[in-house]
Amino acid sequence: MQQAFGLHDLAIEDAHRAHQRPKLERYGNALFVVLRTAQMHEEQGDLQFGETHIFVGPRYVVSVRHGSSLSYTTVRSRCEATPSLLCQGPGFVLYALMDFIVDQYFPVLDVLEDQVQALEEDILGAPVTRATTVRIYHLKRHLLEVKRAISPLIDVCNRLVRFDLDVIPEDSRPYFRDVYDHVIRLNEMVDIIRELLASALEANLSLISVAQNEVMKKLGSWVAIIAVPTMVAGIYGMNFDVMPELRSPLGYPLVLTGMLVVCCALYFGFKRSGWL
Amino acid sequence: MQQAFGLHDLAIEDAHRAHQRPKLERYGNALFVVLRTAQMHEEQGDLQFGETHIFVGPRYVVSVRHGSSLSYTTVRSRCEATPSLLCQGPGFVLYALMDFIVDQYFPVLDVLEDQVQALEEDILGAPVTRATTVRIYHLKRHLLEVKRAISPLIDVCNRLVRFDLDVIPEDSRPYFRDVYDHVIRLNEMVDIIRELLASALEANLSLISVAQNEVMKKLGSWVAIIAVPTMVAGIYGMNFDVMPELRSPLGYPLVLTGMLVVCCALYFGFKRSGWL
Amino acid sequence: MQQAFGLHDLAIEDAHRAHQRPKLERYGNALFVVLRTAQMHEEQGDLQFGETHIFVGPRYVVSVRHGSSLSYTTVRSRCEATPSLLCQGPGFVLYALMDFIVDQYFPVLDVLEDQVQALEEDILGAPVTRATTVRIYHLKRHLLEVKRAISPLIDVCNRLVRFDLDVIPEDSRPYFRDVYDHVIRLNEMVDIIRELLASALEANLSLISVAQNEVMKKLGSWVAIIAVPTMVAGIYGMNFDVMPELRSPLGYPLVLTGMLVVCCALYFGFKRSGWL
Amino acid sequence: MQQAFGLHDLAIEDAHRAHQRPKLERYGNALFVVLRTAQMHEEQGDLQFGETHIFVGPRYVVSVRHGSSLSYTTVRSRCEATPSLLCQGPGFVLYALMDFIVDQYFPVLDVLEDQVQALEEDILGAPVTRATTVRIYHLKRHLLEVKRAISPLIDVCNRLVRFDLDVIPEDSRPYFRDVYDHVIRLNEMVDIIRELLASALEANLSLISVAQNEVMKKLGSWVAIIAVPTMVAGIYGMNFDVMPELRSPLGYPLVLTGMLVVCCALYFGFKRSGWL
Amino acid sequence: MQQAFGLHDLAIEDAHRAHQRPKLERYGNALFVVLRTAQMHEEQGDLQFGETHIFVGPRYVVSVRHGSSLSYTTVRSRCEATPSLLCQGPGFVLYALMDFIVDQYFPVLDVLEDQVQALEEDILGAPVTRATTVRIYHLKRHLLEVKRAISPLIDVCNRLVRFDLDVIPEDSRPYFRDVYDHVIRLNEMVDIIRELLASALEANLSLISVAQNEVMKKLGSWVAIIAVPTMVAGIYGMNFDVMPELRSPLGYPLVLTGMLVVCCALYFGFKRSGWL
Repeated sequence: MQQAFGLHDLAIEDAHRAHQRPKLERYGNALFVVLRTAQMHEEQGDLQFGETHIFVGPRYVVSVRHGSSLSYTTVRSRCEATPSLLCQGPGFVLYALMDFIVDQYFPVLDVLEDQVQALEEDILGAPVTRATTVRIYHLKRHLLEVKRAISPLIDVCNRLVRFDLDVIPEDSRPYFRDVYDHVIRLNEMVDIIRELLASALEANLSLISVAQNEVMKKLGSWVAIIAVPTMVAGIYGMNFDVMPELRSPLGYPLVLTGMLVVCCALYFGFKRSGWL
Repeated sequence: MQQAFGLHDLAIEDAHRAHQRPKLERYGNALFVVLRTAQMHEEQGDLQFGETHIFVGPRYVVSVRHGSSLSYTTVRSRCEATPSLLCQGPGFVLYALMDFIVDQYFPVLDVLEDQVQALEEDILGAPVTRATTVRIYHLKRHLLEVKRAISPLIDVCNRLVRFDLDVIPEDSRPYFRDVYDHVIRLNEMVDIIRELLASALEANLSLISVAQNEVMKKLGSWVAIIAVPTMVAGIYGMNFDVMPELRSPLGYPLVLTGMLVVCCALYFGFKRSGWL
Repeated sequence: MQQAFGLHDLAIEDAHRAHQRPKLERYGNALFVVLRTAQMHEEQGDLQFGETHIFVGPRYVVSVRHGSSLSYTTVRSRCEATPSLLCQGPGFVLYALMDFIVDQYFPVLDVLEDQVQALEEDILGAPVTRATTVRIYHLKRHLLEVKRAISPLIDVCNRLVRFDLDVIPEDSRPYFRDVYDHVIRLNEMVDIIRELLASALEANLSLISVAQNEVMKKLGSWVAIIAVPTMVAGIYGMNFDVMPELRSPLGYPLVLTGMLVVCCALYFGFKRSGWL
Repeated sequence: MQQAFGLHDLAIEDAHRAHQRPKLERYGNALFVVLRTAQMHEEQGDLQFGETHIFVGPRYVVSVRHGSSLSYTTVRSRCEATPSLLCQGPGFVLYALMDFIVDQYFPVLDVLEDQVQALEEDILGAPVTRATTVRIYHLKRHLLEVKRAISPLIDVCNRLVRFDLDVIPEDSRPYFRDVYDHVIRLNEMVDIIRELLASALEANLSLISVAQNEVMKKLGSWVAIIAVPTMVAGIYGMNFDVMPELRSPLGYPLVLTGMLVVCCALYFGFKRSGWL
Repeated sequence: MQQAFGLHDLAIEDAHRAHQRPKLERYGNALFVVLRTAQMHEEQGDLQFGETHIFVGPRYVVSVRHGSSLSYTTVRSRCEATPSLLCQGPGFVLYALMDFIVDQYFPVLDVLEDQVQALEEDILGAPVTRATTVRIYHLKRHLLEVKRAISPLIDVCNRLVRFDLDVIPEDSRPYFRDVYDHVIRLNEMVDIIRELLASALEANLSLISVAQNEVMKKLGSWVAIIAVPTMVAGIYGMNFDVMPELRSPLGYPLVLTGMLVVCCALYFGFKRSGWL
């Protein structure tokens, strides 16, 4: 096939290997485009990436798929449904493919945004646990991977809109500008979700500190409430020969009442000052 | 309507969908402008965004509103009140609309700035609570949304001031430069409020730590003040046959006095060294 | 006055309103410059800002002052003292005004730098208190305001040095380059003071943590020192019929000595390992 | 040798000294390229850097090796195996050397990525220890060193692809673009690994705080569970003459049961509220 | 002297005042260069800065020294030793001076790097103290000052390599490129040392937290080990009439053994779970 279309060695080499970063390269009068596809399996919360390599020549479009990826039959049928646009040549097919792949990221980002929103509600509404921190961490990884797949597309689309004129006809420019616009929006969405996540993380950290403060205050209050009667009991447990209080028949009930009063006073004092 | 004005398919598609990012696009000799409007319902502290899409052609201006937004009748009446400027064509109407929308952000930012100021006073003046952290978080979200609505306008205004000459006549340039100036100021205000918020957050975090330190010192001091007499009482509660102190009639009052003296000494010692 | 000098509507509108950001605008052959002035009332540690708007035309200079600001009589007398330079026209007056205003920031920044230095010594030398955190916060705000007043001047001066040739004669360029140089230095000073403050804040935070660690170690040590004799006393306070130690006349002094020895051992052990 | 090839003094000086940063310089019609080589000794987890200096003239290639580095015999044999490409002159030899050196970084980064992944699993799965923090620190250093070796290569490759035409023939440009592509990917990998590491560090920090919170809650719960019976026992250890409970034969078993019930109640209460 | 060489007023004014930032300015056909010199007094760990101002005209070089600085006699003798290069005019003298001053930073940075390395070993190897935090802070200040002295030199050298052709002859360009290269390397070194320091600070902070966690676990463990026998002793110290255990002659030794067994169990339990 390489010979039939006159493709360059290095492009073929790239097309055989997966794990390329998204890019656009020009070999003679052919374009070589690498894109990353993404799919979110919502039930399992699993994010999978694939790769599509596209060769666009003056009269042909060849696409190579790596990893998990949706079938492109819908793209094909869409192209065949609008023969007037298809007449514009391979440039339009490239647009249809890119548009299809880029639009797949919107539902992925929507799911991620929902997850961040859910996380945020959990953080602000409930005590912080180890699991929350682990979830934040996993969300961050997913966002990093999506960013890595999308951000090089800005440059790719920009070049398609502005240069490489012979493959992309003038009329189809607005279509690529539309893809460019989507890519910009995707990038912005990723950045916003990341900022939200960063804020959630910060809120998480300071809520942990606040919680720790509250735990310590509670702890301290109860220690005080228990320690005071223990001390008093210790004092009246001393074995001195001469301790007049011990002889009085009212001593015991009075001391018990006194303990209760002090404990209650402490309890309500702490309650009022917000320690309990 | 699309046919009457000869608008491009993609622009129409965009105008039907909401949730576009603010942008300026040129289709042939027409401009397509997307703007986000904002309204603050001060009583509920609620921030609502809408969208306005504007088509500006050589002899027409069409605006499409999405979501909550103020009516543009005031803009219309303002335009009709100054027919001399209106003669400058659709460019001036575009200016009037943009000026109206951009100026709506100033009161929004004033409210947000007041909220940050109030927050700041709360943080510096009172003990830190869970509620403060949640408020910081919500303010951050609002600022992020405002930033997202305003920052693309810099680019839009810049292009209106410099390029796209046929729709915007030379004379109305200073007006767009004025809008540009407002947008720059809005962006700067957002940045400053965000920096203030970030400083408030930092202050919040270190005040939490300082508070925790103080709680721990207080706790430690009281533990010491209570533990010492408990220990002494324990010692005189031992059942040894030969404990001369227990026999002495002065033993009990002396030990009680000793305990009191030690407790007071500890109390004032801690007081002086700032632990209590 | 607007008519006498042929000033543009929008510039006049701006001149009436205060709270503009520093900027340089060109209306026809006139320049409109907005500058922010600053004054530090050292006794009260109070920082006040004002605004000066300057119109520079081919044959006139008009200045409008808002808020607190020094009088410009010294500038006027300086200009009149060097008539040879004054002959260079309004450009030189603009330089004299800008130089005067920009130079007012140096003492302000010196005071702020001194405050940061004092703060830093306080942080590194003494225990951290709530007041230190509040001071850091207020210094940050002042620096943010100064930055906001100075940083747009870089752009303003740059444009005065490079463009707008008809108002600023070629010969006075080196003078504006000098102002530009001062502005760059001011910006750098602000950045450095901010970095110092950020470092101070970081040092503050980690010293708080270190202090907390030390408090906890101290607390733990004293708890141990007090808890051990309490436990021993508890054991000999049990009411078993057969406890041989209680019968021995040496029991009490031996136990007391034992307690003392253990306490001292703990005390010096903690001392040696740095916990006390 | 310097005279034979007409090399510049400063280039020779550089070639004698090691510890240059990667760079490309042009002296007359010769190029001087400095590259850093890296080797990972996986068993010891040891990362070693070397340096290679390459002089490329119209008809010669001279390479100087400093520090630990693989032999270039494989490069030589590869070049000799493809005489058709070798005909393209010294430019191709330069490409072969650069490709060989750049490709050595991929396994290094794979090892580092595996280490970060292992670290991450350790952090999220097990209690945080001092050793984890030290490992994070060492990984960071390695990444910093790799970044320092790779990032200047972007600029070097970029210049080889675009300028310096006389030494690098037009046909071999795509090969250098391929090296450039690898360098970009390496840089991206380093950035991603660094971001992962930063996230791991953040997760580490908040997990430490969460763990501290849990320790404190556990501690507090056990203190409460033990303190309550101690207090009760203290009360019944008082020596009042009139304490009716002490006379009842059921007093002791009732009090013991009561203690047990309270302790169990506390235990399960703390268990349910997540403190234990 | 000003008249003899025809120097500009503003340059002379600058030369009189110290505390300029490094810069390059052109007045007519003369260049005015400001450089900052640095010296490290290794014994006292003291870093001192000076300033050198250089005027370079078509046929003269004038240098002015402020603050502490090495003598330039070595530069003079080096220049006189290579008369062939000296013939290239004042440009070469400028190069020699700049090279001399820039090269003085390498030993300074080596000392700073050694200090960071020592600090890092201290942090990773020993418990964190207040002194470490203070040292980090002082190193940061020194690095900030060095950065401030070096970073403007990139721009200065860049301009010397590319523009201002009449004073710097074409042949001496490679020499200035060499200085430029050194400046770039110095900047990179500063950045790397700063990153190392930042990592050390981060490690410091998380090690403080880890240490705090360990202290708290240790504290909690010992509290538990001591509190349990205290509670048991309290129970057997109660004064109930009917407590069968107290009557048994084996009661006391059994209880003592029980206490010991529980304490040991707790001790080894805590030891195994890493709390002690």
